Amino acid sequence: MPPSHLIIACQLRRERLLAKLDPHTPAAVFAGPSRGRNYAANTYRYRASSHFLYLVGMGIEGALLYLSDGEAMLFVPPRPDDDDLWHGPSPNREQLSAQLGLSIRPLTDFAKHAQGKRVATVPPFERGDHASVCALLGRPHLQDEALDGPLLDALVALRLPHDEAAIAELKRAALASVQAHRIGFEVTRVGMFERDVCAAMEAALARAGCGTAYGSIVTAHGEVLHNHDHANELRAGDLLLADVGAETDTGYAGDITRTWPVSGRFSTTQRELYALVLEAQRAAIARVNPGTSYRDVHLAASRVIVKGLVDLGILRGQVDALIEDGAQALFFPHGIGHLLGLDVHDMEDLGDRAGYAPGRTRSEQFGLSYLRLDRELAPGMLVTIEPGFYQVPSLLQNPGRVGLSDKALDRNVLAKFADVRGIRIEDDVLVTETGHEVLTGALPKAVNDLEALVGVTASL
Amino acid sequence: MPPSHLIIACQLRRERLLAKLDPHTPAAVFAGPSRGRNYAANTYRYRASSHFLYLVGMGIEGALLYLSDGEAMLFVPPRPDDDDLWHGPSPNREQLSAQLGLSIRPLTDFAKHAQGKRVATVPPFERGDHASVCALLGRPHLQDEALDGPLLDALVALRLPHDEAAIAELKRAALASVQAHRIGFEVTRVGMFERDVCAAMEAALARAGCGTAYGSIVTAHGEVLHNHDHANELRAGDLLLADVGAETDTGYAGDITRTWPVSGRFSTTQRELYALVLEAQRAAIARVNPGTSYRDVHLAASRVIVKGLVDLGILRGQVDALIEDGAQALFFPHGIGHLLGLDVHDMEDLGDRAGYAPGRTRSEQFGLSYLRLDRELAPGMLVTIEPGFYQVPSLLQNPGRVGLSDKALDRNVLAKFADVRGIRIEDDVLVTETGHEVLTGALPKAVNDLEALVGVTASL
Repeated sequence: MPPSHLIIACQLRRERLLAKLDPHTPAAVFAGPSRGRNYAANTYRYRASSHFLYLVGMGIEGALLYLSDGEAMLFVPPRPDDDDLWHGPSPNREQLSAQLGLSIRPLTDFAKHAQGKRVATVPPFERGDHASVCALLGRPHLQDEALDGPLLDALVALRLPHDEAAIAELKRAALASVQAHRIGFEVTRVGMFERDVCAAMEAALARAGCGTAYGSIVTAHGEVLHNHDHANELRAGDLLLADVGAETDTGYAGDITRTWPVSGRFSTTQRELYALVLEAQRAAIARVNPGTSYRDVHLAASRVIVKGLVDLGILRGQVDALIEDGAQALFFPHGIGHLLGLDVHDMEDLGDRAGYAPGRTRSEQFGLSYLRLDRELAPGMLVTIEPGFYQVPSLLQNPGRVGLSDKALDRNVLAKFADVRGIRIEDDVLVTETGHEVLTGALPKAVNDLEALVGVTASL
Repeated sequence: MPPSHLIIACQLRRERLLAKLDPHTPAAVFAGPSRGRNYAANTYRYRASSHFLYLVGMGIEGALLYLSDGEAMLFVPPRPDDDDLWHGPSPNREQLSAQLGLSIRPLTDFAKHAQGKRVATVPPFERGDHASVCALLGRPHLQDEALDGPLLDALVALRLPHDEAAIAELKRAALASVQAHRIGFEVTRVGMFERDVCAAMEAALARAGCGTAYGSIVTAHGEVLHNHDHANELRAGDLLLADVGAETDTGYAGDITRTWPVSGRFSTTQRELYALVLEAQRAAIARVNPGTSYRDVHLAASRVIVKGLVDLGILRGQVDALIEDGAQALFFPHGIGHLLGLDVHDMEDLGDRAGYAPGRTRSEQFGLSYLRLDRELAPGMLVTIEPGFYQVPSLLQNPGRVGLSDKALDRNVLAKFADVRGIRIEDDVLVTETGHEVLTGALPKAVNDLEALVGVTASL
């Protein structure tokens, strides 16, 4: 069962959602089914829809939260007769109702309740689920912006600023993530494999009662941005990039990246580029304040990186012109970060509805096109700040892909930095009324002192 | 890439499958899609269909193996333009073709190849995938036993006896699983939580380059048969039941259960029941030979358990009559085991087609109805042997559910064994030409000496 502060928060969230919805249009929010791996009964660990978790506080496989006539009720599927044998005792409907503060009905009664009504819903992100949802809701299809749009907008408006209960859970996720990174840093040794460090970090999360919020990236090849393989041996000159985050048992995510030298000491070139990425991160975090455009946070970090690369002689040209051309994307091809909450990319199941303010769309420019968030920051929003530097062979072979002429790049200088394949530094930053709070930095024994441990801070 | 012995085996498997199929009916075997957890891009770790892994040797998301006119070819979906950035370089079609020994085509060409043909397939176990499969194959529905049945029967006939390449992989899975159990046993301490032991065991699998073949069960409440929660604190008198198995990077499964005392020493009552389950397991393993009916293996273990419970005074009555009535199911409600291979319940996606010989169906008797395998054993088949003893409150409250009269149970005697909630002992046993080989027992440093460590063997 979820903690009581979360149960109470969910009641308030449901009330606030009901107040935002048209009373004549009922809404259904599905928990979603479990998924088989290789056959139906051998399931992945169940993970309910984040919208359902937001409103109910816990996942209940196959359940449906129904909001109608100013009231919320939960429809739950029947348990098989022998469920007690395989899964143990579970609360009956009355007990569950008392625990969640929700009226509970059998799912088999749902058709009766919804009969003749046009029911708005959050369309499942898996297309394969659409047919069963349509059948249950009596809807011909799930492409109906007029019907569903107001529900989705209301959910986005509610979920963008985190409430106190959410922040408490997000701090738990941050703490567990920090401890995993601390352990990953401590166990790393030359001759280990990436999987050894990953196993130690994920075990730390498991001991904290958490899972992983996303596929862990623990790699000596950080230039592959979403590298989920862990088969490489760690050599003395390698940097290890670890992007690992906890998911609490209540569904909230942490998201931290650190990059450390396998040997425990940076080379001079590694230190120079690490210091540059760290400077970019600090510049970006300093701009996380209410009212700031997140796109400007991205551009602030980009400016530091471009200026630094010009100073190092890797890029050639005027800083302003290079930024205008998107030169940063040659070495920093992704966005500065994203929303964080119940999803590691919060509400990405809704496309850009949460990430992009109404009327805004993705840039066509390579690099900026990957920016997942383009909104003015507001108190309660949690974002990641994660600049990086990568040498991606396929980009460097063709700078034109980034819109850059070959002469803007000094390959002779770059060749000296061959021992840096990928560096990323990522923290989770909460927008407060007066500025920001780094959730992954204010914790005891944080890995933020990594910089001190490996001698970067002194060089800044 | 899979090891070369597996690539060669897959070529032979495809040839053998083609030889079994009607040359005028082409067949399609899908690798299957990846699955989002909470949004489409945040996927569970990809796991291809076991039939695809059997025939190709590695998972390729969204690919389709097509068997037509005596030839196998692989249709692969296009990679997104920026896939190199996120997922790194990957082999092109020519390289993949050379590596797998298969002709490779773009998936977009498939419709042309299959045009006008009735294509047999393995229906996906996720109903939600049926529509997209029907669309790709140009079939109106996937309920067509006449079309698909011969393909499914051919796959079952091929996959039931494991070839040498499969056995090599299954031994790797067994070895990794044994090492996880060894570590789980070693780290267990009073005051830990179940999750601490589970984390240590899963980390051992990860360090061996393996994942989990199924949701790990590591619990002081072994009486909940599929207990995937790990939140309990381990107390001095508890037994810890650990059912944890490796899945190799090639998809093959191990499946081991051990039950050990948290304190390191059994109580007298725990030792008595552990010895009984161990005796049942040994009796069952002794019967794993070519030609034996697996149902008889189940009944042999059941006999040992019923006789032992009568000897202990827990059950009252004639052993033969009690077995006839299914009395064992009150304390041993599941089957003695199942097929093991690429799936932990091998080929369970096909229902009972693999587990039950043609013409046989599940028993109606409680307990026996859960037996997942009813075939004559043959060389190359791998089965688990996993008797258990459990005190399931909801069964003990109502022995009538098992078809047992209340007077067959001496509750006063049973009360003395209250410190045993669940015991299970499970090994993976390969049927050989002359008898059997315990894959999980013939390994160095096996946990099979657990019995010696905790002083059970001496008491037998």
